[in-house]
Amino acid sequence: MLDSNVKELLIGIVGEGNVNDSSESRLAYSYDATPNFQSLPDAVVMPNSTEEVRKILKVCNDCQIPVVPRGSGTNLCAGTCPTEGGVVLVFNKMNRILEIDEENLTVTVQPGTITQEMIKAVEEKGLFYPPDPSSMKISTIGGNLNENSGGLRGLKYGVTRDYVLGIQVVLPNGNVFRTGGKLAKDVAGYDLTRLFVGSEGTLGVITEATLKLVPMPETKKTMLAIYDDIDAAAKTVSKIIANKVIPATLEFLDHPTLEVVEDFAKIGLPTYAEAVLLIEQDGALEVVERDMEKIMRICEEEHAISVDVAKSDEEAAALCTARRSALSALARMKPTTILEDATVPRSKVAQMVKAVNEIAGKYDVKICTFGHAGDGNLHPTCMTDVRDKDELKRVEKAFEEIFAKAIELGGTITGEHGVGEMKSPYLEWKLGREGIEAMRGLKAAFDPNGIMNPGKMFAKDSRKRVVVGV
Amino acid sequence: MLDSNVKELLIGIVGEGNVNDSSESRLAYSYDATPNFQSLPDAVVMPNSTEEVRKILKVCNDCQIPVVPRGSGTNLCAGTCPTEGGVVLVFNKMNRILEIDEENLTVTVQPGTITQEMIKAVEEKGLFYPPDPSSMKISTIGGNLNENSGGLRGLKYGVTRDYVLGIQVVLPNGNVFRTGGKLAKDVAGYDLTRLFVGSEGTLGVITEATLKLVPMPETKKTMLAIYDDIDAAAKTVSKIIANKVIPATLEFLDHPTLEVVEDFAKIGLPTYAEAVLLIEQDGALEVVERDMEKIMRICEEEHAISVDVAKSDEEAAALCTARRSALSALARMKPTTILEDATVPRSKVAQMVKAVNEIAGKYDVKICTFGHAGDGNLHPTCMTDVRDKDELKRVEKAFEEIFAKAIELGGTITGEHGVGEMKSPYLEWKLGREGIEAMRGLKAAFDPNGIMNPGKMFAKDSRKRVVVGV
Repeated sequence: MLDSNVKELLIGIVGEGNVNDSSESRLAYSYDATPNFQSLPDAVVMPNSTEEVRKILKVCNDCQIPVVPRGSGTNLCAGTCPTEGGVVLVFNKMNRILEIDEENLTVTVQPGTITQEMIKAVEEKGLFYPPDPSSMKISTIGGNLNENSGGLRGLKYGVTRDYVLGIQVVLPNGNVFRTGGKLAKDVAGYDLTRLFVGSEGTLGVITEATLKLVPMPETKKTMLAIYDDIDAAAKTVSKIIANKVIPATLEFLDHPTLEVVEDFAKIGLPTYAEAVLLIEQDGALEVVERDMEKIMRICEEEHAISVDVAKSDEEAAALCTARRSALSALARMKPTTILEDATVPRSKVAQMVKAVNEIAGKYDVKICTFGHAGDGNLHPTCMTDVRDKDELKRVEKAFEEIFAKAIELGGTITGEHGVGEMKSPYLEWKLGREGIEAMRGLKAAFDPNGIMNPGKMFAKDSRKRVVVGV
Repeated sequence: MLDSNVKELLIGIVGEGNVNDSSESRLAYSYDATPNFQSLPDAVVMPNSTEEVRKILKVCNDCQIPVVPRGSGTNLCAGTCPTEGGVVLVFNKMNRILEIDEENLTVTVQPGTITQEMIKAVEEKGLFYPPDPSSMKISTIGGNLNENSGGLRGLKYGVTRDYVLGIQVVLPNGNVFRTGGKLAKDVAGYDLTRLFVGSEGTLGVITEATLKLVPMPETKKTMLAIYDDIDAAAKTVSKIIANKVIPATLEFLDHPTLEVVEDFAKIGLPTYAEAVLLIEQDGALEVVERDMEKIMRICEEEHAISVDVAKSDEEAAALCTARRSALSALARMKPTTILEDATVPRSKVAQMVKAVNEIAGKYDVKICTFGHAGDGNLHPTCMTDVRDKDELKRVEKAFEEIFAKAIELGGTITGEHGVGEMKSPYLEWKLGREGIEAMRGLKAAFDPNGIMNPGKMFAKDSRKRVVVGV
């Protein structure tokens, strides 16, 4: 619980209604979308302005109270679990779209803005914000910034980081600064913008962001290619890119995922298939048509059983909605769903999918794989039950081996979900001891007292690698 | 001069032929392309490998000797002038293209690789590396990375930063780590990749980089729009973007630049015009044609005197070469050419160009303006003579006022040239005291002894602003 003096100080800053330390509220903010991580905060605080955030951070820094900035808590890395208690900062009161600038193609928002609401608002002006994390209906822009969220359109359009032109940041010492602006080019100083994007709330608090928009693509087409062989599907992915076609979306679903998603969405997905690719291209009509023809030919060359372009916008939307619902669909199967995002160079997708299946077999656990095959970002997903301690140990071992395999193939332990608490023990596998040391130095420079989202990114102990010679 | 023990240590690392402290060599590396900045280094050292760089940095860190990593020295911010002496690191021996990966669309290079040579090599495979700094014929990738170089295609394609997937870095303490990989998505830890890109050699040394490539655009068209009114040209720029057309290149040249460039290039540029826009679009043929028609209509609506699409590839190439030669052409006019790159939101280009002209008049100095109007990145260029101390003072005052105006309009003091020594006194105008403090903390975390390129980025004294209320 908060010291009563601290509580009074916080109430003095944000007002009585915006500091909540009831047990209900603390319980509600004790976890995020990540299974198996829970820890009670001491209080939930809702700032109304950057100035209030500044004052809160100063109090917490002086009193060495952890601060966990949180959006909607949809992250899958235990990134917003208040691991060491403290104050959860919630941005419900800082959720405004401040400006859509149609001349400079930018939108300026507060961190609490819901991603999809912002996307809708800019689309009404014929503009397009490409990053589309699957959780975008409820996720916030602040959460997207802290996690550098990806999405289905990452292959062609990049991720959140690629659309951030400038931010306002509050540091633990109460310093406030702005980076960038409505500028396509700006090299005035270190790239603090991108340093804070993806820093998982461990360096400071982003209180405002100016994001880049692009013109809305003229048209979009959606295609489903069906395979009776996982390898063939994965090879198609590499071959499309090697043929210099970059689709907007290039998603992979394996057989078990397909079955579960169809059971959930009931849109007639081919549950007999070993794998499907869901492919979208957007842009000018002629280009989209030509690209889709090329892609179709490649799918056929790689022995797809069938390749069909969606006949209507409704059919296309149904396919995408089904894909986006994969996590929800899988989550219905067993009490606990652990979704990972080991990522590899796209030329290694086939090898990685095969390895995941072998590892699942070895440890006798159920893992489905789907994900953004076009950018090598796979989501091996395990259906389990946290109460089954024995199985959970095997699940953990399986994921360790999956991470090791991803690194071995030139990949990474997380493509878009972040490190958080969950993957912190594995980060050293990717960055090495000297990389972690560099990160620790950087963290200490911004947050010397370690109040910002402690327990995340940096592990207390690194895991020993389970695979030799990786 | 280097202490003889240190010299022996360095020779022991790189071999006798790769440590040069002759006065000729020291003189040759005492300056870069920036006028009015010169300082002798103690020695020039050419490493052959990352391991050698690691050992050099350890020696220099232990002995507190400045290290200045340098490519071809084409930067315009005194970014590679050895301001405090020390060792200039030259990468002539680390200039190999290590791999072009056609499946993952990446190229991996050593820092000494000449930009244009790499571009040619990837183009032979039908691939495209968009960043095209005007100096690319002689600049190195290492220099481009350190400065986060831009270019003519920045508007549509972004800058160097947007194409860096992973780097290998050596820190002053001798630690070495790799970031990223051949990965479209990677959120494992802080974005050290982009922190080092654009850090101007002040944090460590980049010894390898994996860069993203894109498919080569199918076709390209070039257009010249002529105006008898600067305002009309600038308005055209905003209107094209606001109409949701993003050209690959959208360059502006004012009347004095035009005269000088024509005198140099002799390709029949309209020297009677007050301003021209050089516009290129690339992509699929149908899209390029449609975009060019749209752009032409907008130019006409905004009262261009004439709008002409280049009739042949040769004509198009001649126009672009002329634009790229602007700096060389201007440099012939007077003994000293100072080229700046104040950058503003593109909606403010007209205001900025007008302000530059007013400021030039006020201080009675000759300033031409050209640049990447599409991304608001202007290059006001002053022709002067460093020996004329009185004029030089007025030039300095004029540029101070130009920087202040850029900031006032929501812009920045440097869009693509970097801060270096030259613009370090103005950096606080953009980032504020608290932003600079954050940067200093970060610098100290990586380079506690301050050996990496000292005198750059951080000014001994910040300039007072010349404009009140900015």
